[in-house]
Amino acid sequence: MEHSSERYLVISSDGHAGPRPEIYRDYLDPEFREEFDVQHKIRLQALAQAGERLEMAAESAKWAEEKSEGLAGAWDSERRLEVLDGDGIAAEILFVDGLTEQNSPPFGGDLGLMPTGVVPELQWAGARAHNRWLAEFVAMAPERRLGLALVPPFWGVDVAIKEVEWARQHGLGGILLPHMWTGQDAYHHPKYEALWAACEDNEMVIHFHSGAAPMLDYFGAAIFDPQANTDDVQEMPGALGIYVTEVAWWLTRPLVFMIWAGVFERYPKLKTVVTEGSTIWVPELLHLMDHRYGEHHFTAKLGTGYRKHLKMKPSEYFRRNIRVGSSAMSRREAEMRHEIGLETIMWGTDYPHPEGTWPITRKIMVDTFRGLPEDEIAAMLGGNAAEFYGFDVEKLAPLVERIGPKRSWFQEDATST
Amino acid sequence: MEHSSERYLVISSDGHAGPRPEIYRDYLDPEFREEFDVQHKIRLQALAQAGERLEMAAESAKWAEEKSEGLAGAWDSERRLEVLDGDGIAAEILFVDGLTEQNSPPFGGDLGLMPTGVVPELQWAGARAHNRWLAEFVAMAPERRLGLALVPPFWGVDVAIKEVEWARQHGLGGILLPHMWTGQDAYHHPKYEALWAACEDNEMVIHFHSGAAPMLDYFGAAIFDPQANTDDVQEMPGALGIYVTEVAWWLTRPLVFMIWAGVFERYPKLKTVVTEGSTIWVPELLHLMDHRYGEHHFTAKLGTGYRKHLKMKPSEYFRRNIRVGSSAMSRREAEMRHEIGLETIMWGTDYPHPEGTWPITRKIMVDTFRGLPEDEIAAMLGGNAAEFYGFDVEKLAPLVERIGPKRSWFQEDATST
Repeated sequence: MEHSSERYLVISSDGHAGPRPEIYRDYLDPEFREEFDVQHKIRLQALAQAGERLEMAAESAKWAEEKSEGLAGAWDSERRLEVLDGDGIAAEILFVDGLTEQNSPPFGGDLGLMPTGVVPELQWAGARAHNRWLAEFVAMAPERRLGLALVPPFWGVDVAIKEVEWARQHGLGGILLPHMWTGQDAYHHPKYEALWAACEDNEMVIHFHSGAAPMLDYFGAAIFDPQANTDDVQEMPGALGIYVTEVAWWLTRPLVFMIWAGVFERYPKLKTVVTEGSTIWVPELLHLMDHRYGEHHFTAKLGTGYRKHLKMKPSEYFRRNIRVGSSAMSRREAEMRHEIGLETIMWGTDYPHPEGTWPITRKIMVDTFRGLPEDEIAAMLGGNAAEFYGFDVEKLAPLVERIGPKRSWFQEDATST
Repeated sequence: MEHSSERYLVISSDGHAGPRPEIYRDYLDPEFREEFDVQHKIRLQALAQAGERLEMAAESAKWAEEKSEGLAGAWDSERRLEVLDGDGIAAEILFVDGLTEQNSPPFGGDLGLMPTGVVPELQWAGARAHNRWLAEFVAMAPERRLGLALVPPFWGVDVAIKEVEWARQHGLGGILLPHMWTGQDAYHHPKYEALWAACEDNEMVIHFHSGAAPMLDYFGAAIFDPQANTDDVQEMPGALGIYVTEVAWWLTRPLVFMIWAGVFERYPKLKTVVTEGSTIWVPELLHLMDHRYGEHHFTAKLGTGYRKHLKMKPSEYFRRNIRVGSSAMSRREAEMRHEIGLETIMWGTDYPHPEGTWPITRKIMVDTFRGLPEDEIAAMLGGNAAEFYGFDVEKLAPLVERIGPKRSWFQEDATST
């Protein structure tokens, strides 16, 4: 690792961007704008009512009110660069937003890309509106932004592939796929082969991002129903605790399906990232999959057909093809870095979301990494992401010299941060 | 811990018993026997055809053929006692079978108790047929058998409670609940309060047992369809690997729901066991839930409403109210026993299933525990189960003196096992 600089290159594996919701109207194909007007009105009402019922939504609203200036970086390119400069972040991976000012793209073309309760054609329209907006946003600072196109894959793999190609041609660096397939074909289905091939050929990194989970299961349907009488809505006890316990597991399911299906055997250069589900689960998941792959008493009755198409152990595909975006990374993860895999971990801020590090990024970052070897901090803060995504580190170097966090701040005996 | 004996008390937390499928007919209420005859014929055809397609089923059939004498212990009380004596097992927890000779109770009243594709009245009829048979089976060796009644809870909590009371009155010691609620209300729903109360009042231990998982998701619907042309059935690649990777997670979900819902806060003496999902997941799950319960940056936006009904941390309820049945327990689990929780672990054999320890129980048992402190081996092999379930250890003592595995076999320097 190079140590020439006094400062760390920081690449956030988890940033969110999107315009205020009404702006998406301009990015829709014209034939969908009338429907947008109808649904936008309904959506605002529903959000307001759900917000009153869910304490979590109320907390987010409070946060948005307090921090509104900095939060404008969700859609204002200059404001965003100011915030990132202040946080010492040179570059970032850009997911869709949806939390800041409730600025999801319309028609279910959002971070979850859930296949339920949507009209396929409309979901695509919403997703494309975001992809167009994002291509413009990335172009305003292309060396600092790697944007991810929204791709709902369930309504025809050919259509999905066309969007992958469009995104590549328009300066985006990867795609976001839904990790919940609820009733649709999961990612071990052979129908997705052409999509994996297209992502590998176009060097588009596949992403999954946490958030979606079986919310009706947790909270009950009534809580999301704007027609329900508030007094009749029975909140399931502990629902929110259950959600935050399970949410990372749902995120990691696609990896299990893709690895066992042999996707990374057949597409050895296909890159995949899971983001904002912590990295704590990595050691046990890899151990579990390798155990299930091994030959011993437990697997004797399974025969060999289920694994003969895999030339390597599941953990070996994971190490080669997969990275994990660790948003607001904890000290515990940093201490477990060698079990998790030093090269697996890509630090992220999650700006501008309330559970992210902003506006106390420097403090959290130093608390997380203090006293660790410099080359290891460098890898997790930015080196791993730079290599995996292929950022132009030379081009970013002058910026790093200006804004990057100083290596000295992270030393064990540093007195002030 | 007492060390008076030269031998260990062994209680298997995981045994399976059930008669050959046609015998269930006699235990059904008469009005369901005609329907039994119709469905039994269809079921045998479907099983045969699915068996041809699934390598796993074929392996199980081979196993059954080779081991048929010992496997008769699934329904033959004397034969079972001979096998257990040979394995050194003094007592056991008895779940329904379903694998040995495909001897599931009819109408979906089986180990999975899935609420999908069943007629509630019929599922209850199948479950009750098993409960009646099992009560007789337990009565043939009551000090050595703790039987679990099948209770499908989704078709009316009042009916479920009546079955809990019937089971208690007929010598059964606990119940099996389904861990997949697919489309029904999950276990945080307030409707189940009376069921928890009934189990606590009747000292009936609640059990969940691994096996059920979203199989259609993994394998595709066609593979289970006896009408499908074999040539048209497209097997999902890696489906079996995905299944054995995820199967334990589905098993543990009810714990997450019950803990967060405050069930163990309101019913502090309610006992719950999860069986045959290994114990490896325990440390990380408890850490995760306690993290989500704690006050810090991540949880700041969640408010306090989701946890204010819990006076203790999630892990504290787990330690007090929950135990884990570790079937064919691995050396790795034994080495991790203090992280998992020494008191949490209850060794099991899974007899007569092919992935269980029989007929090489002694070898596997010794490989698992060799060289560990005697009192810790004693706890995991039987002491924990004896205390949690309230077995009459005094009554079992003479049997242990005759059949129990010798403590000397487990010593580091033991030359022969």
